[in-house]
Amino acid sequence: MILGCGKRHKGMSSVTCQISISLDGFVAGPNQSLENPIGEGGMRLHQWLFETDSWHKLQGHAGGAHTVDSEVVDGLFQNVGAYIMGRHMFGGGRGGTTFNFVTDGIDSALEQARLAGGAKDIVVAGGAHTVQQFIAAGLLDELYLHIVPIVLGAGERLLENVGDPMLKPNDVIASPAVTHVRYRIGR
Amino acid sequence: MILGCGKRHKGMSSVTCQISISLDGFVAGPNQSLENPIGEGGMRLHQWLFETDSWHKLQGHAGGAHTVDSEVVDGLFQNVGAYIMGRHMFGGGRGGTTFNFVTDGIDSALEQARLAGGAKDIVVAGGAHTVQQFIAAGLLDELYLHIVPIVLGAGERLLENVGDPMLKPNDVIASPAVTHVRYRIGR
Repeated sequence: MILGCGKRHKGMSSVTCQISISLDGFVAGPNQSLENPIGEGGMRLHQWLFETDSWHKLQGHAGGAHTVDSEVVDGLFQNVGAYIMGRHMFGGGRGGTTFNFVTDGIDSALEQARLAGGAKDIVVAGGAHTVQQFIAAGLLDELYLHIVPIVLGAGERLLENVGDPMLKPNDVIASPAVTHVRYRIGR
Repeated sequence: MILGCGKRHKGMSSVTCQISISLDGFVAGPNQSLENPIGEGGMRLHQWLFETDSWHKLQGHAGGAHTVDSEVVDGLFQNVGAYIMGRHMFGGGRGGTTFNFVTDGIDSALEQARLAGGAKDIVVAGGAHTVQQFIAAGLLDELYLHIVPIVLGAGERLLENVGDPMLKPNDVIASPAVTHVRYRIGR
């Protein structure tokens, strides 16, 4: 069920980020490594996603349940023109989507993503440090948090070194597994 | 608007806690003192409350707006038999409510509150350290978080030293100011 609690800015191209976050603010568990980039216990942040039929469909097979969370997942891939990610950069992606990896700063990455994405939305896909840079620079329009009811206790926090981005909750979608809150960034 | 997303346990006496929390997990700002017990910037956590007509009514005067948040505030005082707070202890409160201040441990406080509250709910009213003790000991049934879309950056965190309480979101009430999520504690 979708609970509107503010104005949506439909039809506008946005720079957005959607990310699963524990109730104590972590987007990855402790002791991240090449083998376990999401850290210890971090996979629990994404359990809700793996249980949806939408996720299974994206992997090309049947399975999972069709829930409120499925509709959230389906919505994540609508109107996306380009993805921006930290560290490396390459072109070409699923269904003509362009992936831009940040190597020479976020302004440059955003400029390239705008060129690639046209009038469509630009998704800052992570990691946390890249998202923080976009928030701190005032370049993110929307932060869509999937608030997972787990307490990780340690790991990588999302909302550090970002100042106060002046968030406004715009839409809330609640399920027994997770609370999805779409925040508009005022700053 | 209320968005049910799980089972309510109506009619059951619960040990509950309701608290306003910043999106980065703080229930008080930095540099708490006797003059400013809620810390720098901490009052922003409660702005949503002060803007409701329910709050003004509780103070005995008119004012404020009647919003979704007002209904949340009204609900907070229903079926409460006793309050437990840290540090000191005294009896007698608003409308026959008993306040119990923890001086000799949380088990004793809970026992006294149960005697005072009868079949009604027991509210652990804070501070954060007392709430943490109740969660860690498995004595809290419900955690009702008012998730305020501000980033405090520093201060006193709620969900530290609590292990993983196995939370399940039960009800979500969303407004343009705050997202209220009632978590049932499974542990």
